[in-house]
Amino acid sequence: MEELTIKDVARICGVGVSTVSRAINNHPDINPETKQKVMDTIREHGYIPNNSARNLKRIDAKSIAVLVKGMTNPVFSSMIKVIEAEIKRKKYAMVLNHVNQNEDEVDVALEVVKEKRVRGIIFLGGYFNHDEEKLEKLQVPFILSTVGAAPENVDNMQCSFLTVDDEKESYKMISHLIDRGHKRIAILCVEMDEKSVGYRRLLGYRKALRDHGIAVDERLIREMSGKQEAYTYENGYEVMRELLQEDQDFTAIFVISDIMAMGACRAIIDAGKRVPEDIAVAGFDGIAAGDYFIPRITTIRQPVEEIALTTIKLMFEILEGERKHMQQVFEGELMVKESTVKLSLP
Amino acid sequence: MEELTIKDVARICGVGVSTVSRAINNHPDINPETKQKVMDTIREHGYIPNNSARNLKRIDAKSIAVLVKGMTNPVFSSMIKVIEAEIKRKKYAMVLNHVNQNEDEVDVALEVVKEKRVRGIIFLGGYFNHDEEKLEKLQVPFILSTVGAAPENVDNMQCSFLTVDDEKESYKMISHLIDRGHKRIAILCVEMDEKSVGYRRLLGYRKALRDHGIAVDERLIREMSGKQEAYTYENGYEVMRELLQEDQDFTAIFVISDIMAMGACRAIIDAGKRVPEDIAVAGFDGIAAGDYFIPRITTIRQPVEEIALTTIKLMFEILEGERKHMQQVFEGELMVKESTVKLSLP
Repeated sequence: MEELTIKDVARICGVGVSTVSRAINNHPDINPETKQKVMDTIREHGYIPNNSARNLKRIDAKSIAVLVKGMTNPVFSSMIKVIEAEIKRKKYAMVLNHVNQNEDEVDVALEVVKEKRVRGIIFLGGYFNHDEEKLEKLQVPFILSTVGAAPENVDNMQCSFLTVDDEKESYKMISHLIDRGHKRIAILCVEMDEKSVGYRRLLGYRKALRDHGIAVDERLIREMSGKQEAYTYENGYEVMRELLQEDQDFTAIFVISDIMAMGACRAIIDAGKRVPEDIAVAGFDGIAAGDYFIPRITTIRQPVEEIALTTIKLMFEILEGERKHMQQVFEGELMVKESTVKLSLP
Repeated sequence: MEELTIKDVARICGVGVSTVSRAINNHPDINPETKQKVMDTIREHGYIPNNSARNLKRIDAKSIAVLVKGMTNPVFSSMIKVIEAEIKRKKYAMVLNHVNQNEDEVDVALEVVKEKRVRGIIFLGGYFNHDEEKLEKLQVPFILSTVGAAPENVDNMQCSFLTVDDEKESYKMISHLIDRGHKRIAILCVEMDEKSVGYRRLLGYRKALRDHGIAVDERLIREMSGKQEAYTYENGYEVMRELLQEDQDFTAIFVISDIMAMGACRAIIDAGKRVPEDIAVAGFDGIAAGDYFIPRITTIRQPVEEIALTTIKLMFEILEGERKHMQQVFEGELMVKESTVKLSLP
């Protein structure tokens, strides 16, 4: 089916362009039969707006695709905003794609690059565990930003990798909880795939306990629920509710995202317990919501705006041939708040 | 500057395509000088990935642009997800654009439609108060979704309009607060422009008080702070903090977004007061965060997924000539929770 311009529609219907315009715009000043004829023609052929008529110079903007896994996590909203601003400044368009938890982001990316104008891809969230051959098919430069572990053989690939050191940051948080006197510390992590953010944070958890002479109790290691969407309040709530029902012995929990940590707090309160007096709760990310929650959430702040800006600037430098792919690790910051340390109110 | 394909780069440098590929992909198996030459050539001319070589059939996807005002509000995340899924199903691309609070969304839209492939625009959030002439320049069909009041003369325009009745929903909430015995009710609204969501909710507030024989006290009508980004926790926190410092007499407040209502709760707690015993707090939107907050936030739930799905389906029906522009008003739902009614915990 070939689409028609407004002039084509006018010609076929034997009317003027302004009449077609009136029909499209639902203007009252048009004969109903003529209107019908115009709309039928458009229905039959499809229609592309006629722009030259209004002297609007139209262009084919190149675009950067952004693929987000775990879209309900507000961490990505602030990253997307930074990335979009830079893309706009470069007169590119940003094509946003969300990847569902059960979708393969590389398959989604392969669909996306079929689009001629996509010049680069930025992956946010999720994790990467794909064979090189599949990744090479992507054809355009891509950057993994805040994505679990680097793919193997990253040096040979058309790919950059920007993130915090999830194992190290997790180690920091567990050390904080141990410093506060906790010995029975649970963890709510995600997907045991060894490339995932969750797995790397679990490594940090195990290492911190080991270094402090505390035995790991596998019953206190919990995965996100597969029944709810990942990285949601609901998921944190449900996993915590189940853990509380089992009557396990623990006095603190590290939840690998603030959103889920807040859901976990709500489950603790609903069970008639207090945060942090009965159970201390620590999150990860450093989103604004956690800082207004009651109690404020202790967290590892990821420098997401800085990671986002570095990511998109690097993308354009690569496209302009000024730079090659690289890896960069950013430093997180431990923010101690009310959910692990009871503070007296002012 | 004309961009080169991988074949052009190979020809100019007098090397094979695979050598160029190795240079781009940072492969170790390449002579450093050759690599330098390749990268210099790319730097000079720019480079477009050579796709035909890998039998990837590339297309020019048409796109729908989504313009979001007030992006930090999670209401829009769920709407965007629904809209994107439908756009993808139709083999279009979604181009996302955030509009800053101080930007004119129609100016942003005019920039966006310069892009040839944009076939329609969806506006989310903000409000519309633009002369018809400017809107007509948009050329492509557009839909205002969850956007304040309809533009004037909407019948003659190439535009649809889908939203809740903000005045009526606000009236519902104020009636709930009055039913709970409150007579001194404050409101935190936004931008006094008569087309805005905030203004229409203020109308509902005034009408509900009047209908219940309660005099309006203008000192209890507060606007969002211009110092912080709109619709943020921070903004709700700051405005509430100032209101509490003034020592005004009020026992309840209606805040026109859940995010800001939660910020306001935090300010009340930080001032050593309780929610709802000292001050009842009501929000608007019905986002998940509010349902896990401590206390859970009383709110008006907007059927955002339904509005989003109706919006994008309507867009494609209009593009396919099956339908004309229309207006549709959706019903909100009052959700009474702990922030206005103290509930005993289980």
